[in-house]
Amino acid sequence: MVKRDWLFKANHQVHAAASFTMRNILESIMGNIDVTQTGKPMIHLGHGDPSVYPCFRTSPVVEDALMDAIRSAKFNGYADGAGIDPARSAIAEYLSRDIPYNLTTDDILLTVGAEHAIHVLLTALASPGANILFPKPNYPTYEARAKFNSLEVRHFDLLPEKGWEVDLDGVKALADDRTVAIVLINPGNPCGNVFAFEHMQKIAETAKELGIMVISDEVYAHQVFGEKPFIPMGVFGHIAPVVTLGTLSKRWIVPGWRFGWIAITDPIGILHKNGIVDCIKSCLVITADPPTVIQGAIPRILKSTPESFFVNINKLLKEAADMFFEKLKEIPLVACPHKPEGSMFALVKLKLSAFDDIVDDVDFCMKLAKEESMILLPGMATLNHIWDAFGLKNWLRVSIAADPTVLEDAIGRIKAFCLRHAKDIGQRKVCPPM
Amino acid sequence: MVKRDWLFKANHQVHAAASFTMRNILESIMGNIDVTQTGKPMIHLGHGDPSVYPCFRTSPVVEDALMDAIRSAKFNGYADGAGIDPARSAIAEYLSRDIPYNLTTDDILLTVGAEHAIHVLLTALASPGANILFPKPNYPTYEARAKFNSLEVRHFDLLPEKGWEVDLDGVKALADDRTVAIVLINPGNPCGNVFAFEHMQKIAETAKELGIMVISDEVYAHQVFGEKPFIPMGVFGHIAPVVTLGTLSKRWIVPGWRFGWIAITDPIGILHKNGIVDCIKSCLVITADPPTVIQGAIPRILKSTPESFFVNINKLLKEAADMFFEKLKEIPLVACPHKPEGSMFALVKLKLSAFDDIVDDVDFCMKLAKEESMILLPGMATLNHIWDAFGLKNWLRVSIAADPTVLEDAIGRIKAFCLRHAKDIGQRKVCPPM
Ligand SMILES: Cc1ncc(COP(=O)(O)O)c(C=O)c1O
Ligand SMILES: Cc1ncc(COP(=O)(O)O)c(C=O)c1O
Repeated sequence: MVKRDWLFKANHQVHAAASFTMRNILESIMGNIDVTQTGKPMIHLGHGDPSVYPCFRTSPVVEDALMDAIRSAKFNGYADGAGIDPARSAIAEYLSRDIPYNLTTDDILLTVGAEHAIHVLLTALASPGANILFPKPNYPTYEARAKFNSLEVRHFDLLPEKGWEVDLDGVKALADDRTVAIVLINPGNPCGNVFAFEHMQKIAETAKELGIMVISDEVYAHQVFGEKPFIPMGVFGHIAPVVTLGTLSKRWIVPGWRFGWIAITDPIGILHKNGIVDCIKSCLVITADPPTVIQGAIPRILKSTPESFFVNINKLLKEAADMFFEKLKEIPLVACPHKPEGSMFALVKLKLSAFDDIVDDVDFCMKLAKEESMILLPGMATLNHIWDAFGLKNWLRVSIAADPTVLEDAIGRIKAFCLRHAKDIGQRKVCPPM
Repeated sequence: MVKRDWLFKANHQVHAAASFTMRNILESIMGNIDVTQTGKPMIHLGHGDPSVYPCFRTSPVVEDALMDAIRSAKFNGYADGAGIDPARSAIAEYLSRDIPYNLTTDDILLTVGAEHAIHVLLTALASPGANILFPKPNYPTYEARAKFNSLEVRHFDLLPEKGWEVDLDGVKALADDRTVAIVLINPGNPCGNVFAFEHMQKIAETAKELGIMVISDEVYAHQVFGEKPFIPMGVFGHIAPVVTLGTLSKRWIVPGWRFGWIAITDPIGILHKNGIVDCIKSCLVITADPPTVIQGAIPRILKSTPESFFVNINKLLKEAADMFFEKLKEIPLVACPHKPEGSMFALVKLKLSAFDDIVDDVDFCMKLAKEESMILLPGMATLNHIWDAFGLKNWLRVSIAADPTVLEDAIGRIKAFCLRHAKDIGQRKVCPPM
């Protein structure tokens, strides 16, 4: 018999989708780092994960809750696709504190982090011909997953001059009768903004007008440190149906535990009637589950983490935002037009014309990695024509959630780097080249 | 402005896929149970999860390893898509003990249980026009996920008269130049069989002849208790490229921890050259991750779980298989043609003509749930024309991994149920109807 060749092929659509992810972008930047060359320890301000810094360590209550769940040996078995009831009802109770409805166990579906919640939602909504409205700038996973699911994406602007509010006229102009949802991230990533009550109400009314649901990514819920309080979108559930994404990752600083949820606030019953809730549940059945043992720890984590832990984290974030905003003013080549008031991020604009040999934001990040062993996330890049992390060319996203001394060091490195690469015209270079 | 209706729709392909899952099938059966009616505690022999029974509790070493990982606070952050290196290299070392190659860190990719590994592999292989060879009977997740990914499935038989060996002539007849892989489950689910060395070598040679890769689901690796030893398919990696699926779920009895892996045994380098490995990695980037904190516990779990723990679990399984096989002979309406020698399952055939009012295996399981508060998995059913759990009409799959007294109780209930539903001809009913 003739031996056939090993000709089987891979599914190339997967690559195309993965190239949009923050993970792949960050990995490429990380590839430029060589700490033995710079003699400087790496500083990673490229993602929202301060868990490595002792001052951001999670509460002992959180650790103890998981240890108890393990020792009980009650949570070693398989769970239902939507998760175990005690965890679901604890989340329902936790979220109901801040909205005028009582969510029930059935309104909560557990996921492997909010990342998985995004996968599940965009899969559930990807019926043929449908389109979805995403903010620009956006969190890259949405772009990657929509691409993977062949869900058509239309982008509305967040307006920097209005503190990153939604361009509601733009939203209305984009939507048609195949539009299924609008995605919002509040507190904002990458913008570090927080939506005001009145603006959110207008968003909900616009969604109602357009007959679409609201997907509210509240991964940074309660992490606000400016003037505006955090308002859950679920507050407006009587205007338009809301699907909220939540997680342990950010508020409890355990992103590596991979635990998140989808909450349905749908007092007028649209999402059940349209089959969206059932479809999300089916999606959970055919995708991964968060470990039962972590689910088992949820009731205690939500009930017993002391308020002082959250207060302290927000205090650290506020101090970081203040320091970052002030110190950045000392660097003439960049600007931070909007002081961070929520989440963990600041958006910084490059004054590109003032640089001598920096082509764009990706070039900036690549060279910064090489010369300063430091990672920031570029807003947009045309490298390979595939990077468009947030849709913001020549912006940088900086995570401010770091140990204060590290953040100060980081700003110093950015400054040195900028001055080293500044045009010589009218502005003397103060740092020697490396 | 005119208010549009809430007309957005769900993605119906998801439902179709989910209906194939064991989870949805078991849930429907579970719906028939009412313990207040029967006065009997529920017995769940429908899935491979004995973690609820104290005699099957995981080793304290496993629990301690996870508690230490938590307390170290080193594993609270995000990990790479493929997982953290110490966990990957520990698995490489663990698997290399039993094959003639040294797997490296790069050969191991971490997943959210083997379930997620199945999702990832079938996504990576679902290029347009491709087809894949599945065993019949099969583990239902493969069917559900192939359907979801629109990957064409072709079934070859496992032959009960040959101890559930692969029908290799059937395999050759099915394959064509768009065939990408053959899937094997060894030790077998649902068949409870174990493949012999010579048979596996023939499978590898067939794969080579056909130019396809072998996907070897070794979720029940080392859980053998008959004559045949467990041989990893990776042993034959020099003949055809092998992708192995593994998990903590079964050998360490922590299915709720959701930790699994994909191992690449590809000494001739086909899978790298064909882009399959990269595609699997891309797939991991855009799907869920196993918690870093569980990854952190892996090196210690793999190194320190005492051999006596595994020996004891296999002893329990052997005793269960012996007891089940003997006691089942006392029930004239069913037969177990092949004594379980591996995994956690026995396949039982219904002698349908001997029953009075049982239409098929699904009917059997539904009524058994109602009358005896007991769950078994039906082999095949035409209810809604969507159930085809294993592709075995009028077979039942029984998990034998249970506390011995529970298993004995279960067999008693099956016997009572069978006799109660037996035809009256020539065979007196011994149990009164309920
Ligand atoms: C806006 C946004 N959504 C979702 C996620 C994913 O969060 P998780 O860690 O829960 O998967 C992140 C993580 O950074 C995020 O910033
Ligand atoms: C054959 C087979 N493959 C894969 C799996 C999934 O295992 P895990 O718990 O690691 O997701 C199972 C679980 O029962 C199984 O029986």
